Amino acid sequence: MTDEISKLTEAAATAAPALDRRGREWRATLLRAIADELEARREDIVAVADSETSLGGARLGGELTRTGYQARLFAEVLDEGSYLEAAIDHAGDTPMGPGPDLRRQLVPIGPVAVFGASNFPLAFSVPGGDTVSALAAGCPVIVKAHPSHPETSRLTFDIMWQAAHRLDAPDGLLGIVFGQDAGAALVADPRVKAVGFTGSLSGGRALLDIVGAREDPIPFYGELASLNPIVVTAAATRERGTQIAEGLVASITASAGQLCTKPGLVFVPSGSAGDSVVARAADLVGQAGAGTALNDRIHAAYGEIGGRLSRLPGVSLIAEGSRSTEGPLRIRPRLLSVAAAELTADATEECFGPATIIARYDSDTELHDALGRLPASLTGTIHAEPSERDRITELAEVLRAKAGRVLFDGFPTGVLVSWAQTHGGPWPSTNSQHTSVGTSAIRRFLRPVTWQNAPQFVLPPELRDGDAGVPRRIDGRLRLPR
Amino acid sequence: MTDEISKLTEAAATAAPALDRRGREWRATLLRAIADELEARREDIVAVADSETSLGGARLGGELTRTGYQARLFAEVLDEGSYLEAAIDHAGDTPMGPGPDLRRQLVPIGPVAVFGASNFPLAFSVPGGDTVSALAAGCPVIVKAHPSHPETSRLTFDIMWQAAHRLDAPDGLLGIVFGQDAGAALVADPRVKAVGFTGSLSGGRALLDIVGAREDPIPFYGELASLNPIVVTAAATRERGTQIAEGLVASITASAGQLCTKPGLVFVPSGSAGDSVVARAADLVGQAGAGTALNDRIHAAYGEIGGRLSRLPGVSLIAEGSRSTEGPLRIRPRLLSVAAAELTADATEECFGPATIIARYDSDTELHDALGRLPASLTGTIHAEPSERDRITELAEVLRAKAGRVLFDGFPTGVLVSWAQTHGGPWPSTNSQHTSVGTSAIRRFLRPVTWQNAPQFVLPPELRDGDAGVPRRIDGRLRLPR
Repeated sequence: MTDEISKLTEAAATAAPALDRRGREWRATLLRAIADELEARREDIVAVADSETSLGGARLGGELTRTGYQARLFAEVLDEGSYLEAAIDHAGDTPMGPGPDLRRQLVPIGPVAVFGASNFPLAFSVPGGDTVSALAAGCPVIVKAHPSHPETSRLTFDIMWQAAHRLDAPDGLLGIVFGQDAGAALVADPRVKAVGFTGSLSGGRALLDIVGAREDPIPFYGELASLNPIVVTAAATRERGTQIAEGLVASITASAGQLCTKPGLVFVPSGSAGDSVVARAADLVGQAGAGTALNDRIHAAYGEIGGRLSRLPGVSLIAEGSRSTEGPLRIRPRLLSVAAAELTADATEECFGPATIIARYDSDTELHDALGRLPASLTGTIHAEPSERDRITELAEVLRAKAGRVLFDGFPTGVLVSWAQTHGGPWPSTNSQHTSVGTSAIRRFLRPVTWQNAPQFVLPPELRDGDAGVPRRIDGRLRLPR
Repeated sequence: MTDEISKLTEAAATAAPALDRRGREWRATLLRAIADELEARREDIVAVADSETSLGGARLGGELTRTGYQARLFAEVLDEGSYLEAAIDHAGDTPMGPGPDLRRQLVPIGPVAVFGASNFPLAFSVPGGDTVSALAAGCPVIVKAHPSHPETSRLTFDIMWQAAHRLDAPDGLLGIVFGQDAGAALVADPRVKAVGFTGSLSGGRALLDIVGAREDPIPFYGELASLNPIVVTAAATRERGTQIAEGLVASITASAGQLCTKPGLVFVPSGSAGDSVVARAADLVGQAGAGTALNDRIHAAYGEIGGRLSRLPGVSLIAEGSRSTEGPLRIRPRLLSVAAAELTADATEECFGPATIIARYDSDTELHDALGRLPASLTGTIHAEPSERDRITELAEVLRAKAGRVLFDGFPTGVLVSWAQTHGGPWPSTNSQHTSVGTSAIRRFLRPVTWQNAPQFVLPPELRDGDAGVPRRIDGRLRLPR
């Protein structure tokens, strides 16, 4: 197996400079060809993914649309070119003496290992955001396929490979491996220069240990565990409690709760208005059918963590989804409740699946004390009324410190792929200062290089004299292309 | 001691949101006040630094100029504002359905621990680049003072503190600790959110292990070991060998070789022109006086590593600086020589101080084989003639893969602080995708946050509707302020 990995990483290392030399335009063409080809094979892809996941055709069709969209969006990023952070400081006098001509731009970091996620067999897997952002950056990619959808992985890999080879892509542009040992070997391989990972905290930690033991530690971008707290104020509870309860349960049960942004903890005020919200949510959860876990591991963990949570002191199970559905790997939605004052660290463990804890709070002080004890998340959400300006401001500041995305009067599931998106937050939600969704995800696979007093022919086209067609900072001043 | 550290980090954590709220304008004022105050106390600072380092008044005066300059440059970065990477995606239809209003900007990461370096008691120490880039980002800083210049550290800390307090800065904006244990405790402290470190590979590795053992691993920006190879082509050797030899020896002996960008390995072609270059360099090294090590550790390591290098098979000592100088901690410049074909990994260990190995090569193949075996560095340099386009192109590509700055016909010491500078490279030169010199150093201490459907009053000023006075990406299009 090590031989097989070495062959792949060697090919990727050889492809790396070639892929860089092809330039932005070629890579944009590649990404659009990949998107076109995925779209052209929509029926096949959705059918295979449907046969080996429990997500259903509608969700998988939407996910394929998103997968093509994000490949095309990175093509736009390449067209536009400001991701290069191109800068030119002309030679001249400085307070420290004469300065040389310095030209800086981001360059590809080298071959990237991408770990596919179980819950998005397309958009966070072989043809997913990590892969297309790394290819956009100019980095060859070797994907470690997720064992929950091997055939979807193979099919989408073949489709991407064909699209790439029709464009005469360098060999080694794309590779794929299967199995945990192959994944570990990939992360340890000296030719791999960065890792993109979406998965569990324990899996992420294990890979991070491999990174730490390398002779040259490399960037590891892990998207790990996230609680995604929601705070509902008393005023919002009174004004639109039913609507909030309905939105919440829809968000909890979407994709059977197997989304990184599923709200796992909801603060609802004590008192009768709060009681109504909780009762309505409990009704809806009680009526909800069981979903299907993506794999054995998620199924087992859902049962185990769910059981652990419900046995914690002060925590009670207040609703559970219908028992009537049949079949393997069923996971039933669960609503738990606890007093915010009794919310311990044990109760803030992520339970991947359709489970949520409602934390009832008596006062803003109690709420803020509890928020202060929470781990960081990908998202934090506030439901409040427009009149509550001071409360909203304070909550937004608290949640901003604990999350990468702060939402108002919405629900965190459904992450738009766009320029201003952030899907990342402080540990344990991610371990990086970057996003794994949206255009700036490309920054993870780039590093800066400065050329000093370089002849024009050595410079990348974007750093040569004259208009380069990309935004550049020239002698400190940002300039847009003509 | 742990109590003392906790008090400092607690104060820093409390100061963090306050410092952020003060806004860019206040922080720019702070940085300019710090620069003014450092300049105003120039004589005192240089005198104290001169009394406890061996760098001399001229170098220290220049370093103070640079230190003030970089604080002011980060004030300009704040004025200009594109470091925020502000982006607004308005709500609207997307291929995945209706999209929300998303607004993204970088926010301060939280309290930062900065480890002062011995070789720049000002510019890479208490008032140095890490400190001012973190303050610019909006992060409180606790500096671990370098034991080689405690009084300079105390004095510059007091000056910065006074400047800050005259501006009514939040308590906890700046802290200082002394001693290795205090430094380790700082890196382990849960309130510290990033580390800036300039020092040895072993020191960096030890701190990185502490980071890895934290419950929440944090970004560690280490600037560690660098060989800074120079390649001289046969044509350049013939055309301007003397000039190259003179420039080289000046670069090796500057600050007694105690610079991260000191060239440690120089490829010179075999044959008579190369022999002349080596002979001239050997003459100059032989005439050079001994320098003084900044501390015992550097003095001992220089002797030890230098001895080890000169005993390697095939390596010979060809020149050594004058024995005549007296005093403690003397380190004598040394020129070693080896055949490029015999250049082993052992011979590419960084020897911090005025030592350099000349590697003689017989052919381009031999040169490229040897370059392929080198570890990565902060810099890589090519001396060639304009006619050698193909050779230059190929060498530039090889060095770019191994360095963060590629120089042409110059020497790597003397790192200009500017917008387009990169002082960083692949491991072991740094472990990051960032620079520690120049304006983009600020990115190390920031993380992205997105606000979704936020009311205007919650947003940072730069993300509100209307002209915000900073460059922003609006619906994917970069726009400069009016």
